[in-house]
Amino acid sequence: MSCDYIALANQGVQGLSPYQAGKPIEELQRELGLKHIVKLASNENPLGPSPNVLAAVDKAAAEIARYPDSNGFELKAALANKLGVAAEQITLGNGSNDVLELITRAYIEPGKSAVYSQHAFIVYPLAIQACSGRSIVTKAKDWGHDLNAMADAIADDTQLLFIANPNNPTGTVVDEASLVNFLDKVPANVVVVLDEAYFEYVEASDDDSVDGVALLKHYPNLIVTRTFSKAYGLAALRVGYAIASPEITDVLNRVRAPFNVNSMALAAAQAVLADDEYLQQGRQVNAEGMKQLTQGFDTLGLTYIPSAGNFIAVEFATDTAELYQKLLKEGVIVRPVGIYEMPNHLRVSIGLEAENTALLDALKKVL
Amino acid sequence: MSCDYIALANQGVQGLSPYQAGKPIEELQRELGLKHIVKLASNENPLGPSPNVLAAVDKAAAEIARYPDSNGFELKAALANKLGVAAEQITLGNGSNDVLELITRAYIEPGKSAVYSQHAFIVYPLAIQACSGRSIVTKAKDWGHDLNAMADAIADDTQLLFIANPNNPTGTVVDEASLVNFLDKVPANVVVVLDEAYFEYVEASDDDSVDGVALLKHYPNLIVTRTFSKAYGLAALRVGYAIASPEITDVLNRVRAPFNVNSMALAAAQAVLADDEYLQQGRQVNAEGMKQLTQGFDTLGLTYIPSAGNFIAVEFATDTAELYQKLLKEGVIVRPVGIYEMPNHLRVSIGLEAENTALLDALKKVL
Repeated sequence: MSCDYIALANQGVQGLSPYQAGKPIEELQRELGLKHIVKLASNENPLGPSPNVLAAVDKAAAEIARYPDSNGFELKAALANKLGVAAEQITLGNGSNDVLELITRAYIEPGKSAVYSQHAFIVYPLAIQACSGRSIVTKAKDWGHDLNAMADAIADDTQLLFIANPNNPTGTVVDEASLVNFLDKVPANVVVVLDEAYFEYVEASDDDSVDGVALLKHYPNLIVTRTFSKAYGLAALRVGYAIASPEITDVLNRVRAPFNVNSMALAAAQAVLADDEYLQQGRQVNAEGMKQLTQGFDTLGLTYIPSAGNFIAVEFATDTAELYQKLLKEGVIVRPVGIYEMPNHLRVSIGLEAENTALLDALKKVL
Repeated sequence: MSCDYIALANQGVQGLSPYQAGKPIEELQRELGLKHIVKLASNENPLGPSPNVLAAVDKAAAEIARYPDSNGFELKAALANKLGVAAEQITLGNGSNDVLELITRAYIEPGKSAVYSQHAFIVYPLAIQACSGRSIVTKAKDWGHDLNAMADAIADDTQLLFIANPNNPTGTVVDEASLVNFLDKVPANVVVVLDEAYFEYVEASDDDSVDGVALLKHYPNLIVTRTFSKAYGLAALRVGYAIASPEITDVLNRVRAPFNVNSMALAAAQAVLADDEYLQQGRQVNAEGMKQLTQGFDTLGLTYIPSAGNFIAVEFATDTAELYQKLLKEGVIVRPVGIYEMPNHLRVSIGLEAENTALLDALKKVL
């Protein structure tokens, strides 16, 4: 006696395709037998972990047989202090991916919809689909979010709206005046998720730049999400967080698995949060690398979307599937973004100087 | 303009109360200013981590800024090899809690139901409720699962059925003949989850004991879940797994977040899987501690539910809320199980000899 266990699953789940991660270095090594590989595919911090993190992880190792603190007391206190919010406004997640899923699982079910933009981070449609919700996708404008179109797209059954700022994979940002104007138009019964995974890379000198946390007190329907995976260099450990009203935070914590954030992640996040030097160094390396890459692309006659993040989407004359494979053979892993309706772009993470050079050299060779 | 963000959430989410974790040692230290604390509250491995794990974690630390392998290639290969299954049958989770949630999110939505037993692990009702599913709870028999009642309880809208073996918090087990008889009765369109979180503690010498993995080839609707949090001593790192048919595994991996298992957990799990000595030592310490505690309870005139796990539920004359607090003041953390409809029981994890002695001494003092 058997049965079709895919057809038995919830409607939304049946239509899901798993997320395609950036190719791991070990996988390419297994496949091609290459030794020296440059990975510019997952928007990771090329500096490696902060020394504070290594010390914290070493110390936490003694307690590996114990469960993590389910409430993340110390990390939440440190974040609350740094951000000027209450600990009751913070939800910790197993990466910000977990936080984005918690939000979706709290507010989306069959019969409900969520709005996001063309070219926006792929986790939004995946999370909505997993909950059998309806996706409303608005057209992008100059590769970025068209906030007017997004406000207009809100339907009677809309519960959520996602804005990625900066957006992955385009690197585009919204300016503060436009965002405030937009938030003023959105009804209070639509929860707006402002995904600031790349917040720390945005130039603070830019007067128009958005700080979602500063907007929270004016918009009770706003959730800001951030991560330790990018500028804080903890991608391996998985820790992200949401900041919102205590009421929304209560909802998210009902859905949250009790031990969703592991002890190493809690300790490491607290350690790196106190390491301003590491953050500044990462920003500087990123700014220099961005300059190096864009100049290199200019020299190669390639166009790209100006990016506020730690990555950049470069455009080619044709579909990049073959180019991606050619770069792999040169030992350089970048990210094809066909799934983002950008078949002619490759997304390149900003690396160390030598890594960026390796990419530019490989491009020169294969183009 | 505001709105009630709890009422806006999905129906099931509105009714959720968060899981209450065992009190962390640091929390009790903060509250009572106690220095020496014995925690027998979360069924953790009292040995601490395997030395292999510490070496693996130390090595993995260098790559903290990189994302984990989204597919857990090496750990799945090691598990497949050890269990005699294909890697395509394994789903990795952020603890087995994550795996249990993935299963529920794949198969439960409004209008669907799931069956579990009275006194069964609390994560089942929480996961079902979070998906706005209907819970069907069958009466326990001698504190354990009444498999006949569970089979009879299956309704037209039932998609899932959970069996915890051994069950937490009662420590009860089902025997193989009864389980096979039960599985023969369950329709193919009901997915049966056999939660073997405490599998490694069951005496292998017991002829009647169940090995869920051996049953998989006969029952395509069966999912076996296991964890590295208990006998393998990795509670802090969060790694569990499901073994099922490739078809069900495909479904679970569609719902799974791409980087749900962190790199430290992947490396540590692989390391401890190869450390048979650690597993054997843990089993021996558990068997000795179980003997020490049950003899101590006998001396104190206390009854308890015979347990196959690394914990034991002890019965008292009255509600244990006050007793729990008194033990905290003695620096001993155990687990009240009122939420499991067992208000007169306390669940005690098996500790090292000195920890067990501390509990028995504290009980003697406060009773």
